[in-house]
Amino acid sequence: MTVHLVGAGPGDPELLTVRAMRLIANADVIVHDALASDEIIALAKPGVELIDVGKKPGNPTPQELINTLLVHLGAQDLEVVRLKGGDPFVFGRGGEEAEALQQAGIAHTIVPGITSAIGVPAAAGIPVTHRNVSPAFTVVTGHREKGGSSNIAWEALAKVGGTIVILMGVAERAQIAARLMAGGLPGDTPVAAIRFGTRANQVTVRTTLDALAEAQIQAPSTIVIGAVAAFDFSPATTTDRAAI
Amino acid sequence: MTVHLVGAGPGDPELLTVRAMRLIANADVIVHDALASDEIIALAKPGVELIDVGKKPGNPTPQELINTLLVHLGAQDLEVVRLKGGDPFVFGRGGEEAEALQQAGIAHTIVPGITSAIGVPAAAGIPVTHRNVSPAFTVVTGHREKGGSSNIAWEALAKVGGTIVILMGVAERAQIAARLMAGGLPGDTPVAAIRFGTRANQVTVRTTLDALAEAQIQAPSTIVIGAVAAFDFSPATTTDRAAI
Repeated sequence: MTVHLVGAGPGDPELLTVRAMRLIANADVIVHDALASDEIIALAKPGVELIDVGKKPGNPTPQELINTLLVHLGAQDLEVVRLKGGDPFVFGRGGEEAEALQQAGIAHTIVPGITSAIGVPAAAGIPVTHRNVSPAFTVVTGHREKGGSSNIAWEALAKVGGTIVILMGVAERAQIAARLMAGGLPGDTPVAAIRFGTRANQVTVRTTLDALAEAQIQAPSTIVIGAVAAFDFSPATTTDRAAI
Repeated sequence: MTVHLVGAGPGDPELLTVRAMRLIANADVIVHDALASDEIIALAKPGVELIDVGKKPGNPTPQELINTLLVHLGAQDLEVVRLKGGDPFVFGRGGEEAEALQQAGIAHTIVPGITSAIGVPAAAGIPVTHRNVSPAFTVVTGHREKGGSSNIAWEALAKVGGTIVILMGVAERAQIAARLMAGGLPGDTPVAAIRFGTRANQVTVRTTLDALAEAQIQAPSTIVIGAVAAFDFSPATTTDRAAI
């Protein structure tokens, strides 16, 4: 009937949108990834069909198969929710799914979610923009496709003058830091890495760009680079400062 | 008691988060700006005190006065919601308010909202990232502070290789387009400008970077620059294509 591409936000169930909550409660089928928490899945109605297409390292569900599944489900008399962590259009491959549904003539809607790129720094008391400090922010993935490259001109990004937020960048952080410094970002530029952002077990590591490669950071973390990464405007945050 | 800095999202009341809706319904005082819609204000409880600090051109409420007001209210036995369009930390000056509350020792929370920078393009069927097309996006304000400059290195931004989303950039669009082209972005780079995004009267204008200065675009609009701006993965969108 209709396939809803729905962002689930960064993890805290109360950061779902009102529309996301309504659609989840009304869904006949929920096609979800590994980022959807049990608390969010529990909002579905009894008897809902749950399909886990979480992409696990080494054993991924191919995107083409997910697209085909959504078209197949959407052609039936079913309300289908495709639930994604964060926002469906921020590295969520929601564009590919929307395109496949559109080409197949399947009715669909797009429901934005709170992206981890903004919501996770906020949960650590970090504003991605700040007057007279950062007039812009760039959200970028550190993940490189197999056989491909990320195509990001990190040296140019270093010269833009705003905050840099990296998702899926923990493994590549040494190379990213080196390229940003090669582009002119000072080694003492503040960095914050937030793991389990918005959840009860949230941990923030503070460091600097020249120490990022050696900092004790575990994936997945949201990495914030720029002057705002030194801020903590949150009244209660778990903060561990890395040895610099 | 507690001051909650709450993002109201791009306009559609169903794009409030569940937490935002709960806090609005429970608030004793709501300090809101001009972007908060009547539909959202109507979710408050009877007898709520509404304080409009919307910054109108030529007659702004100084930010320092808003900060002082929030500290004053937060020191009383009141649940206070500071309601902002979009996300409080994306050009919302929420960082300044959080800092003022923190320095005054007032309990506060930060509730992210759907930013127009992502939610409005999505409502026009435009994903800000797309595999093999755009591995990053930069959100930037075109607004320049009185007597200041925006400090954005637009020529460097042109070289990054991702989507550019400009908020409050309609008035400055000729200069921005010229600087991005000077930085190497081709004149035929797709551009979309979305007005009243997510609302019933949403209008999208499609053009190219070299025609942006002359395109019929009215403020406030969200401007998207990059290959993704040519996409429309939405099943139902009001789209006017500008003469190119």
